[in-house]
Amino acid sequence: MYKKIKSQVFEIIEVGKNLPSRIFDVFIIVMIILTLITAIADTFDIPSFWKNVFDKFEIVSVFIFTVEYILRIWTADLLHPELSPLRARLKYIISFMAIIDLLAILPFYLPFFIKIDLRALRALRVVRLLRIFKINRYTNALNTIGQVFKNKASQLISSIMIVGLLMIIASVLMYNIESTAQPDAFSNAIEAMWWAVATLTTVGYGDVYPITAAGKILATIIAFLGIGMVAVPTGIITAGFSELVKSDDNQENDKKKYCPYCGQKIDDK
Amino acid sequence: MYKKIKSQVFEIIEVGKNLPSRIFDVFIIVMIILTLITAIADTFDIPSFWKNVFDKFEIVSVFIFTVEYILRIWTADLLHPELSPLRARLKYIISFMAIIDLLAILPFYLPFFIKIDLRALRALRVVRLLRIFKINRYTNALNTIGQVFKNKASQLISSIMIVGLLMIIASVLMYNIESTAQPDAFSNAIEAMWWAVATLTTVGYGDVYPITAAGKILATIIAFLGIGMVAVPTGIITAGFSELVKSDDNQENDKKKYCPYCGQKIDDK
Amino acid sequence: MYKKIKSQVFEIIEVGKNLPSRIFDVFIIVMIILTLITAIADTFDIPSFWKNVFDKFEIVSVFIFTVEYILRIWTADLLHPELSPLRARLKYIISFMAIIDLLAILPFYLPFFIKIDLRALRALRVVRLLRIFKINRYTNALNTIGQVFKNKASQLISSIMIVGLLMIIASVLMYNIESTAQPDAFSNAIEAMWWAVATLTTVGYGDVYPITAAGKILATIIAFLGIGMVAVPTGIITAGFSELVKSDDNQENDKKKYCPYCGQKIDDK
Amino acid sequence: MYKKIKSQVFEIIEVGKNLPSRIFDVFIIVMIILTLITAIADTFDIPSFWKNVFDKFEIVSVFIFTVEYILRIWTADLLHPELSPLRARLKYIISFMAIIDLLAILPFYLPFFIKIDLRALRALRVVRLLRIFKINRYTNALNTIGQVFKNKASQLISSIMIVGLLMIIASVLMYNIESTAQPDAFSNAIEAMWWAVATLTTVGYGDVYPITAAGKILATIIAFLGIGMVAVPTGIITAGFSELVKSDDNQENDKKKYCPYCGQKIDDK
Repeated sequence: MYKKIKSQVFEIIEVGKNLPSRIFDVFIIVMIILTLITAIADTFDIPSFWKNVFDKFEIVSVFIFTVEYILRIWTADLLHPELSPLRARLKYIISFMAIIDLLAILPFYLPFFIKIDLRALRALRVVRLLRIFKINRYTNALNTIGQVFKNKASQLISSIMIVGLLMIIASVLMYNIESTAQPDAFSNAIEAMWWAVATLTTVGYGDVYPITAAGKILATIIAFLGIGMVAVPTGIITAGFSELVKSDDNQENDKKKYCPYCGQKIDDK
Repeated sequence: MYKKIKSQVFEIIEVGKNLPSRIFDVFIIVMIILTLITAIADTFDIPSFWKNVFDKFEIVSVFIFTVEYILRIWTADLLHPELSPLRARLKYIISFMAIIDLLAILPFYLPFFIKIDLRALRALRVVRLLRIFKINRYTNALNTIGQVFKNKASQLISSIMIVGLLMIIASVLMYNIESTAQPDAFSNAIEAMWWAVATLTTVGYGDVYPITAAGKILATIIAFLGIGMVAVPTGIITAGFSELVKSDDNQENDKKKYCPYCGQKIDDK
Repeated sequence: MYKKIKSQVFEIIEVGKNLPSRIFDVFIIVMIILTLITAIADTFDIPSFWKNVFDKFEIVSVFIFTVEYILRIWTADLLHPELSPLRARLKYIISFMAIIDLLAILPFYLPFFIKIDLRALRALRVVRLLRIFKINRYTNALNTIGQVFKNKASQLISSIMIVGLLMIIASVLMYNIESTAQPDAFSNAIEAMWWAVATLTTVGYGDVYPITAAGKILATIIAFLGIGMVAVPTGIITAGFSELVKSDDNQENDKKKYCPYCGQKIDDK
Repeated sequence: MYKKIKSQVFEIIEVGKNLPSRIFDVFIIVMIILTLITAIADTFDIPSFWKNVFDKFEIVSVFIFTVEYILRIWTADLLHPELSPLRARLKYIISFMAIIDLLAILPFYLPFFIKIDLRALRALRVVRLLRIFKINRYTNALNTIGQVFKNKASQLISSIMIVGLLMIIASVLMYNIESTAQPDAFSNAIEAMWWAVATLTTVGYGDVYPITAAGKILATIIAFLGIGMVAVPTGIITAGFSELVKSDDNQENDKKKYCPYCGQKIDDK
């Protein structure tokens, strides 16, 4: 009996095919979208009636997400049947999705445990927006893109590392070049980094830019490296998408290979 | 007799090979280009003589496009011979191209049905520009690009969804961070979204940008994600173009896959 | 005798392998680089001595390029041996490279034929810079990139057409939306086009940007389409580079195909 | 004995697998990261105690890197065993990595040899940051990206050459067009180049932009070419990444190309 309920709950909260599971999925997505809307509306000067409604909704939604979180931990041993129940639950708790779920509900419970400034709490409430990632669990289409990023993670991280080093070098150099001419905008290397970001990403707000000849030459070099910075991750990600497609192709191709010597069909690979 | 005229009209308004059809196609393209020119010229302080000429042209062009629209509906049963005449016409009316055609002529007829402010009507007339999409019907070259977008629609929509979520999160966070320091530029999350757009797309007009340290850190993260935002659709579209080429190659290859020694058809790959 | 000299001259001015030809190639490249340097130096307030030197150099260089141009026409029948001498020369004269060559020397001779303002003539002298394209004739490395652009010309032109239409639509719409709020920046659709360029290319100088809500929404859509605008040509060009590489690969692969039925080597394609 | 110590030292300073070598590698990376941190901290108004600590650290780090540099030269004959000891060391000294190593320590020793202004010396100290490139020696992940750039070097250099020429042409043209309207921002072709950089790279700071109609038309052309400028290196680099993956695939495939029926090796593809 207990086992049967558990397995039914598991069926429902996981992305299942039966009706209750689908209703649950749609319900969670609606809750997340409502969270988004109230998060945006909260930033406006809205009448206190609505403020009140949003606060009520917040209590209800946190309650629902808390129940969902507990149910997921409870049924985690069905997710990892190869592990002992305790280990399965621990493994689930430290998974990316479970941490997101926890962070999304934690700020609400914080004032019960520690004394916290109300202002800071308000800011913390934006963490609710992390619930958006729960949608990911429900949309198959995003998984292809996610897969590409996962496959190419090490190369992408390397390219981010290069960019980080480039930014530090550019900032320290620019500070040395421009700090005399513009002591306000380039007062130290960290301030100069704001210029480096705007230039490397080619955003170019125009609030800080070099005015000396040497500064302009450095900015030119950095701006062109910025183009490379777009090109490298684009190349990595494009290769990722092409490979995904190709590996699909290969699976199809595999069915039709022949040995040139004996003419037999070979399904190698 | 009636049937013959109908099939001849169909031949002419569709992208056909005979002379009348070609003359008709060129005529429609010229009309569309003239629409574009008058739409631009209308925004200048032009002498009333020309204003008058443009208004006359508008009447003529609406008349022509209306006739074309009616003829297309009339001959729609030849376009979908497998359906009953009524269904064929309904199917045509709800097609993308037919809706564009209707929207492009509708604003002209609106004042006959409902009372409408003349100023608002003028603004509505820009809908004429939708006629541009009719060119698509006549240029084969655009179809390759359109095909790539169609093939990759679900992936592109997913990436747009990610960007949308990113923009909302960035806006709410930035509002919480910067609204105290810059209450005018970041007065609410929707206003902050204008900053998020300029940063994520790397346009960077420079009218709004964070000035606090926390705001600059968030802007840095968003700007770098903006680069990923360029990289992902680029990767998807590039993979799309590569696959199109590859499938063309395959079709060509298929034709010549015979062994020159034994004459057997070979379907390797 | 005459024929031998002609064929020797042809050998020298074409990109040949013998020593005189190589010396000639290097000489022309040096002349082009000197043209570049004097063109930049001309924009500075330089002492009249140097102005004089540059003017002398201009006379010498125009003389040399004129002689080169005449020699190229003279030997054009060796370039197209399948045509009659007259047709070969006409074909050469209307080739892209020959037109560049002519345009680069023409401004110098203009005052001899028509009366021309000296100031306008000075401005016309920048046409000298077209000589840069002559370098292309001598550098093999640029040809790969040129080849990709040639292979993908029709698709790239289509994407430029789409962008052009997009720019016109965006400009007319933005004029209608913003002209009341900012009559100076958006005084007509052509002025609004300057905003559309800055946004679609993601340059974003920040001199013009929408301030109304409707304008910002349109700018958001255009900025995101701007990202697509980068993605499409990138996709086309990337596919071009990949195909170039692949066709090289295929040439190698072709040597090693076998019929699955009889085991014979097939060099199809 | 001497030989054994030498070979052990070589083992340690090279990227080896045994424990002392790994400790050495981690130690050098820590030193480089500390260099980075002190370089940034140096740009702040820090208390003299910390300034003192940083100066001490600089002496220690230069000492360590000097010893490392000497050891690397000493053991260079084990790196190139095919050469005579002297030639092996010369070859090492002129290698890219050795020059970086030398440049990173040289500014510290400069005042001992030539009289140098203290201010200039401080600026020269940023050369320390070159030590970052030493990390490259220790991170395998960066090598894939480096490999792509090496494979495609000639094409990338060609595209940079095109951009350089484009920038010069754009600058000279823009000077001729805008210098009358904006004599300050476009006082000569070199100044105009700053505008060309901001436009071609799509950074668009917004400090200089054309205001005349002709200038805006030129800027439009240059901005669109700027998009091509992103597209070409992206295409080259993407093709590079795709080829790397493909050649990896081929190597794997080569190992399993045996017909399972007759056991013959198959070298299709």
